[in-house]
Amino acid sequence: MQRTVDYINGKVIMIDQTRIPAELSTIELASYQEVAEAITSMKVRGAPAIGVTGALGIAVAARQSEVDDPQELYAELEHASDVLRATRPTAVNLFWGIDRMMDAAHAALQVGSSVDDIRDALDGLAHVMLEEDEETCQAIGAHGAELIPDGARVLTHCNAGALACVGYGTALGVIRAAVDAGKKVMVYADETRPRLQGMKLTCFELLSDNIPVTVISDNMAGSFMRKGEIDCVVVGADRIAANGDAANKIGTYSVAILAHHHGIPFYVAAPMSTVDFSLSSGDDIPIEERPHEEVTHIDGQRIAPEGVRVVNPSFDVTPAAYITAIITEKGIVYPPYRKNLRA
Amino acid sequence: MQRTVDYINGKVIMIDQTRIPAELSTIELASYQEVAEAITSMKVRGAPAIGVTGALGIAVAARQSEVDDPQELYAELEHASDVLRATRPTAVNLFWGIDRMMDAAHAALQVGSSVDDIRDALDGLAHVMLEEDEETCQAIGAHGAELIPDGARVLTHCNAGALACVGYGTALGVIRAAVDAGKKVMVYADETRPRLQGMKLTCFELLSDNIPVTVISDNMAGSFMRKGEIDCVVVGADRIAANGDAANKIGTYSVAILAHHHGIPFYVAAPMSTVDFSLSSGDDIPIEERPHEEVTHIDGQRIAPEGVRVVNPSFDVTPAAYITAIITEKGIVYPPYRKNLRA
Repeated sequence: MQRTVDYINGKVIMIDQTRIPAELSTIELASYQEVAEAITSMKVRGAPAIGVTGALGIAVAARQSEVDDPQELYAELEHASDVLRATRPTAVNLFWGIDRMMDAAHAALQVGSSVDDIRDALDGLAHVMLEEDEETCQAIGAHGAELIPDGARVLTHCNAGALACVGYGTALGVIRAAVDAGKKVMVYADETRPRLQGMKLTCFELLSDNIPVTVISDNMAGSFMRKGEIDCVVVGADRIAANGDAANKIGTYSVAILAHHHGIPFYVAAPMSTVDFSLSSGDDIPIEERPHEEVTHIDGQRIAPEGVRVVNPSFDVTPAAYITAIITEKGIVYPPYRKNLRA
Repeated sequence: MQRTVDYINGKVIMIDQTRIPAELSTIELASYQEVAEAITSMKVRGAPAIGVTGALGIAVAARQSEVDDPQELYAELEHASDVLRATRPTAVNLFWGIDRMMDAAHAALQVGSSVDDIRDALDGLAHVMLEEDEETCQAIGAHGAELIPDGARVLTHCNAGALACVGYGTALGVIRAAVDAGKKVMVYADETRPRLQGMKLTCFELLSDNIPVTVISDNMAGSFMRKGEIDCVVVGADRIAANGDAANKIGTYSVAILAHHHGIPFYVAAPMSTVDFSLSSGDDIPIEERPHEEVTHIDGQRIAPEGVRVVNPSFDVTPAAYITAIITEKGIVYPPYRKNLRA
């Protein structure tokens, strides 16, 4: 499959994920404002993907700028970074990606680089980050595949797949690597209300790869665990605190508790860029409240009665105690996470 | 609100629940075949409601019949009862309602009643069952209201409301009775995929009664429990085994496990007609597999990728160990259920 997000000739090229599964179409974005809008409206989503996309937004902003003075360019990039940072609050990768670009711009500025040199430096780093993301997912997959038994029926929630990254995926990268290693794997995909990324994105990309996938309503997972039809759970993460508490798509916490109750291993697969060492615990992770129409409407059609009160927290936090292991590109991390994530 | 299902001039009058919340419309059914179709297609649903509706189907069949011979009429009713029984397998109330009518028909036959007398007897029993269902729900409400603290935030799953019964409701009857007793109650309604009865029906009827209700995706419940925002859970049931294991809408089991994990009381509200003493445990309750389009489509629009494998069990079984109490019209039943349900 093509890259979820790419950077070609100073433009961000991305798959418009709001069109999947109806069609696999790409859009070209030539301004950081368009990049910000694409993140906000979830044309691109998934923590690693929006991390890289945020970075690409800075590269685009540098290309967009018409100033000749490096200081002025840097000021414009700072403004662009503020706009990009304001798009979504939970996935720390977004800030990591933007910071990395801004650090590079700052370093170039410090050594007296020209405006064109700064642009080139940012372009270069953008391409590095695209490639690194792919390599990181491959490494996560290679490590995590060891945890997947042959014949496993693996539950996943939301989409932590190729579409959540530049390619390959974190949780689905683990599954792809297990399949590539010759293991037989069957995936249960929680449909993942309200936006149905499990049904629409995870099923779409696993079907494309001919990996067997069954979609279930989110509320079926516990019942399938009870019937012994799920061998392990693998999910992604949007931010992991220093103690291992992990924010991920709403509903992940329930899956973790249900897995814990049934003695089923619960794995989180994420790059180290998802770990926020500045936060002592998951209680400090900001949780985005998304538009209520995501719950009350599907594909533009109202399904809820008029006037009903709605809440729509987009993420929840799974305490480290319910996470069997965190699969990173550096290896599999077991508890105690506060010590072992740093190591 | 009008009765969910009624029997007027030899016809079944029912609210077409597949039209809610778009509109509150009623349909008139003058044949048992139409009654059977209405149950299958879930124009009427909810264990108590389909119990009464099945019974009304027998009364309609007697009115439909053109035979003069009581034996021939009884044979036709037996055929109608087979058709009605085949509509849905899980809710035992359906069989209870049909059996009760067939027993009455059989008794009338035994004492030499005429065809007209049998029809009248069935009509009379139909009206008794309609009234009994309302009284039963009121009694369930009165008993259950004691369990609801003032100021409680009550989670419910699916719709065990007026729309699941002739009126008033079981789980929502408990909430209504608590409100009528002057308590402040706030309801969290699981939207209840795939058919969204929580969002469409529970929210609709609570909004009609001005009882505060917030709709959440099914996968949010655990997170709200963790945040201390849910004080108790009240759900209905489609069949309760002699040991207290309770089948209810898919997802109920997950809610029960999550409530158990968080130390939150989990109550099942159901009439005694939902208890199937012939089944030793919930393992013997047949679970209906509904059409896969319920998962892959919403309001006729496909939302899932083509070709994805789907499963759609309509119910799951919550083991008695996770049920704090069962609220019946006879009173509140606590464990051990095998002994106390009989008593």
